[in-house]
Amino acid sequence: MPYEFDDAIVAVPETGGIYRTPIIGGWDIGVNANGGYLMARAAHAMRMASGRRDPLTVTAHYLAPALAGDASCVTEIVKSGKRISTVVATLRRDDRELMRLIGSFGEVQSESTAHYVTATPPDLPPIEECVARRNQPTPIPMGIAQRVSLFIHPDDAGFSSATPPGVGRMRGWFSFADDRPIDTLALLLAADAFPPTWFNIFGSQGWVPTLEMTVHVRAVPAPGPLRCSFTTRVVQGNCYEEDGEMWDSNGVCVAMSRQLALAPLVAT
Amino acid sequence: MPYEFDDAIVAVPETGGIYRTPIIGGWDIGVNANGGYLMARAAHAMRMASGRRDPLTVTAHYLAPALAGDASCVTEIVKSGKRISTVVATLRRDDRELMRLIGSFGEVQSESTAHYVTATPPDLPPIEECVARRNQPTPIPMGIAQRVSLFIHPDDAGFSSATPPGVGRMRGWFSFADDRPIDTLALLLAADAFPPTWFNIFGSQGWVPTLEMTVHVRAVPAPGPLRCSFTTRVVQGNCYEEDGEMWDSNGVCVAMSRQLALAPLVAT
Repeated sequence: MPYEFDDAIVAVPETGGIYRTPIIGGWDIGVNANGGYLMARAAHAMRMASGRRDPLTVTAHYLAPALAGDASCVTEIVKSGKRISTVVATLRRDDRELMRLIGSFGEVQSESTAHYVTATPPDLPPIEECVARRNQPTPIPMGIAQRVSLFIHPDDAGFSSATPPGVGRMRGWFSFADDRPIDTLALLLAADAFPPTWFNIFGSQGWVPTLEMTVHVRAVPAPGPLRCSFTTRVVQGNCYEEDGEMWDSNGVCVAMSRQLALAPLVAT
Repeated sequence: MPYEFDDAIVAVPETGGIYRTPIIGGWDIGVNANGGYLMARAAHAMRMASGRRDPLTVTAHYLAPALAGDASCVTEIVKSGKRISTVVATLRRDDRELMRLIGSFGEVQSESTAHYVTATPPDLPPIEECVARRNQPTPIPMGIAQRVSLFIHPDDAGFSSATPPGVGRMRGWFSFADDRPIDTLALLLAADAFPPTWFNIFGSQGWVPTLEMTVHVRAVPAPGPLRCSFTTRVVQGNCYEEDGEMWDSNGVCVAMSRQLALAPLVAT
């Protein structure tokens, strides 16, 4: 039986670098597709166009909220080098652009002539001591919380209570609800699957529009759930950044992400 | 008398969103234009196309080294919203693409309905106690080190000695050599003007090719030099990230940057 995520990112090539890339319902926040799902969705078509195995770095600018339904991804290979291909893409529905992306694809290397790691994985309690996202009350339906298994650090789960922690942090475990293995493409989903850090700072749970998100894939994940950590250090000018790190079961940093988001209610 | 940087980023509009954008010599590392200069150079044309004041977030993928000489920047406005315009661009020479970019432009706001800052500016000694980059010995000529005034934290200046500090850090003061005011566009230059953190980790001073760089502009800088800090925490798979922060004289975080670079000698 196919995994839900693979069904949700199917890309059917047509001519001229165009892929049919329907946006599948159920990966939503309210009625709109989750931003990480949309990025992975488009990046899968870009990866197919590149003929490479892994996204190395992908940037998406979010242009419009996306309901489930037909969509297409128009890809263009900018450069195909010896080891890396750079691809740009437009995710669109009819005449409306939903997202623009640029990414470089290749093969994440496990060997390295140089090694230096001072970052450390977040200190998380075991999954059974964390808070299941799918059981938390939400002001709007969260389809995506049924597709992925998020278990949030108890210290960071207070946003849905009357006393948010007031700290720009969100840590927890990520895996797929149907236990699909986490490949490098799924890291793009993981980078935006958790509740926004904003919730923990300000306690509100409104729609937080992402302007731009970039994900660096740094290693192929080993089997097992990811330890994830998202941090915000500067909220000003009605914008904030959210920096993510994803770590695999071997304690390897498999991805870093950063997004720039608008404070809720600041329209573009 | 015009400032050197303004001369170096002149963009002359032609038809169809194309700008003549010559790459000016002197902003180089060896014979190749510095990556931050190239990004600011293209982003200036994108900003003109957008009709907005500030770059908010710009991402560049570097495709080929760029010698000084004629170049053009082909811009396309993807979306023009109420407050933000998204623009893509290609910097090219003849038939060769040098860089692809995507950026969103608008007006960085000084007021904010929400405020939360836990990041702090780097602790730097006064400029006169720092090491002038322009006086350091370099294995190849560094034109850019004459255009900008970089004063490096004494603890981070060891890369040019026999005993590099072995720490992924580079901190220092940034300003223009001719005292041009630092506007939001110049932050893109500042984000890649310092020697790579790689030098301080491994002691080597080879060419470090940037694959991708993203800069978030977070505030309009107050007058005076910037306090800058660049950090690397994960070198593996022949790639590393470099995270930058730029702070103005009022202690405000004016930009955050992140680049993914290839370990020297790993060809694309």
